[in-house]
Amino acid sequence: MHTDLVAALDIGGTKIAGALVDGGGRIVMRAQRPTPAQQDGDTVMRAVEEVMGELTATPLWGRAHAVGIGSAGPVDASAGTVSPVNVPGWRDYPLVERVRAAAGGLPVELIGDGVAITAAEHWQGAARGHDNALCMVVSTGVGGGLVLNGRLHSGPTGNAGHIGHISVDLDGDLCPCGARGCVERIASGPNIARRALDGGWRPGPDGDSSAAAVAAAARAGDPVAVASFARAAQALAAGIAATATLVEIDIAVIGGGVGKAGDVLLSPLRKALGDYATLSFVQRLTVVPAQMGTDAGLVGAAAAALARTSDTTAAGV
Amino acid sequence: MHTDLVAALDIGGTKIAGALVDGGGRIVMRAQRPTPAQQDGDTVMRAVEEVMGELTATPLWGRAHAVGIGSAGPVDASAGTVSPVNVPGWRDYPLVERVRAAAGGLPVELIGDGVAITAAEHWQGAARGHDNALCMVVSTGVGGGLVLNGRLHSGPTGNAGHIGHISVDLDGDLCPCGARGCVERIASGPNIARRALDGGWRPGPDGDSSAAAVAAAARAGDPVAVASFARAAQALAAGIAATATLVEIDIAVIGGGVGKAGDVLLSPLRKALGDYATLSFVQRLTVVPAQMGTDAGLVGAAAAALARTSDTTAAGV
Repeated sequence: MHTDLVAALDIGGTKIAGALVDGGGRIVMRAQRPTPAQQDGDTVMRAVEEVMGELTATPLWGRAHAVGIGSAGPVDASAGTVSPVNVPGWRDYPLVERVRAAAGGLPVELIGDGVAITAAEHWQGAARGHDNALCMVVSTGVGGGLVLNGRLHSGPTGNAGHIGHISVDLDGDLCPCGARGCVERIASGPNIARRALDGGWRPGPDGDSSAAAVAAAARAGDPVAVASFARAAQALAAGIAATATLVEIDIAVIGGGVGKAGDVLLSPLRKALGDYATLSFVQRLTVVPAQMGTDAGLVGAAAAALARTSDTTAAGV
Repeated sequence: MHTDLVAALDIGGTKIAGALVDGGGRIVMRAQRPTPAQQDGDTVMRAVEEVMGELTATPLWGRAHAVGIGSAGPVDASAGTVSPVNVPGWRDYPLVERVRAAAGGLPVELIGDGVAITAAEHWQGAARGHDNALCMVVSTGVGGGLVLNGRLHSGPTGNAGHIGHISVDLDGDLCPCGARGCVERIASGPNIARRALDGGWRPGPDGDSSAAAVAAAARAGDPVAVASFARAAQALAAGIAATATLVEIDIAVIGGGVGKAGDVLLSPLRKALGDYATLSFVQRLTVVPAQMGTDAGLVGAAAAALARTSDTTAAGV
C-alpha cells in the first residue's frame, strides 16, 4: 500500500480543521469542528480527537505516514506544546503527544500558524519559486513566516517570522504583548478601525465599523480612512524592510482579511517601502497579495509534514 | 603538499589586512596596508594587491586553497562586487574577480564585514556552540550578522544581519541611509556623543567628546551621559528583540568600540530587552560581550572560505 498521504491539522481559536493531503497538495478528505475555545483543555482536545477520528476511520488513512499541525501560537515545537492566546485552556499543552496517540504513533510535525501559511504560499502560492520570502497574515492580528535559502525557517520553537510583534515605534503605544509600537499594534484590522474612529470617521447606516468598512470608506475617498490605512501601511513597510535588511528576502506576500483590502493597503505600502527599504540589497523587494485561500493552514501543515518525513524536499519547504 | 590553509582579507575604510589562516583559526602569516580610501578605485586595488603579493610570495602560499574576503558594505556576493560607503572609488567594483586573479585562480568567497565578524564569534568566540545567534558591531556604525540553524546566514548578496539599518522609530530622525529611526541613527558612537552634547554634557579638559568619553562620564554618574547610553540601549534592545522575534536567536553578541563601554551599555540594554522581547519564545535571549579582538574580520573571512570549500563544516559556519 502506498504511504503517499499526510494528515494535516489547522488549529485556530474558531475552528479545528483536519485533512488528508496528497503529495501534490490536494486535499482528498476533510473534517472540521468548532473550537470550544473558552472551555477546559481536555474539552478542546476532544474536538481535535473527533477530527482525527474522522480521518483515521477512512480507508485512506492507511496511506498516511505523518501528521502536520499548524496551530495558533505561541507554540513550542521543541517541547511539542502549544499555548494559543485565544485558547486559555491550553497552556504548555502537550498537543504533539496527544495527536501522535490519536494518529496511532505516526510522526507529528508542529509549526505555528503563520509558518504554516508561509509553507503553503511557498509550495503552491505567491511565494512559489522564491528562495527567500516573508509571508504575512494581516487580520485581527498580524502573523507571518519566513522562507530562507529555499526552505521554511520555522526556528527551534516553530515561531519564527512573528513580524506582528516587532517594534517599529519604540516609544509607541503599549501592545498587549507588553512591548510598545509593535507592527500589529498599528496595522491589525482592529487598530485600523480604532484609529479611523478616533480620527472622526463614522460607520454607515449598517453600523459596520470593521477594517473592511474603513477600507470601503478609503476607496470612496474618505481622508480619515485613507490616513488610517496609510499609517498601517507605514508600519507594515517598516517591518517588512527590517526583515529584508536582516535576512535578505526578495518578496513579501500579504494575506489575511486586511490584506484583502487590496490597493487601499498595497499602494501606500509599496510607497512606504521605498522610504524604509533603502539599502541596495533590499531595493528589489516586491510586495504581492497572497494566493492561497482558507485551506492555506491545512496545505502548509501538510507541507511541513512532507518536508520533515522525506529525504527529498518534495514539498519545496 | 597539504592544502590546509586559506587566505583571508579584511577590507575596511582604514586598513586592508590579509593573512594566511590554518584550519584551527590560527593566523600563520599576515600583511597590511592603509586603505587609500579617498583615491580612485585602481589605487585602492593596488593596496589589496600589495597585501596579496606578500601572502603569495611566501612558501606557505602553496598550502592555501581558497580566499575569504570580509569587506565593508554594501557588498554583492552574487555579483562578486563591493560598494563600501567609505571607499567612494569602489562602486560595484569587481573585487572577487581581481582577488581571484591576484590569487592565481583560487576560489574566492565574499561576505560583508558584519557577517565576517559573526563567523569569527561563532567559530571561536562568544557565539561558539550557539546554533542561532546575532553578532553586532556597535561603533562608528552598527553592523551585524546572523547564525541560523548552526550555519552562517549571509543571504544571497552577503549582507544579511544588517541590524544597524532597521527602523525602530518609524517617525524618527532621518538616517543617512534614507530611512528614519534606524538603530544606527540612535545607537552608534557618534550619535551617542551628539545626543549627550545636545543634552548639555560637555567634554573634560582634554576636549574628548567621543562616545568613550560619554561612557566615562556615565560611569561617573553624569545623568545626561547615562541617558544618552540608555537611549542607545533602548534602540539596540528593540532591534535585537525584533531579530529574535523574526528568526529565533538565543544569544546576541555585542562588540565594537561602543560595545567596549561595558555595563554602561549592557545593563540598560538587558533591562530594555525585557521591555521588547516579550513573547515566550524570545524571553531566554541573552546578551554578552564579544570575545574576538581586532583579528575577528580576518578569522571570520577565513571561516567563510573554509566552510564553502569543504564538504564538512570544519569551521562550524
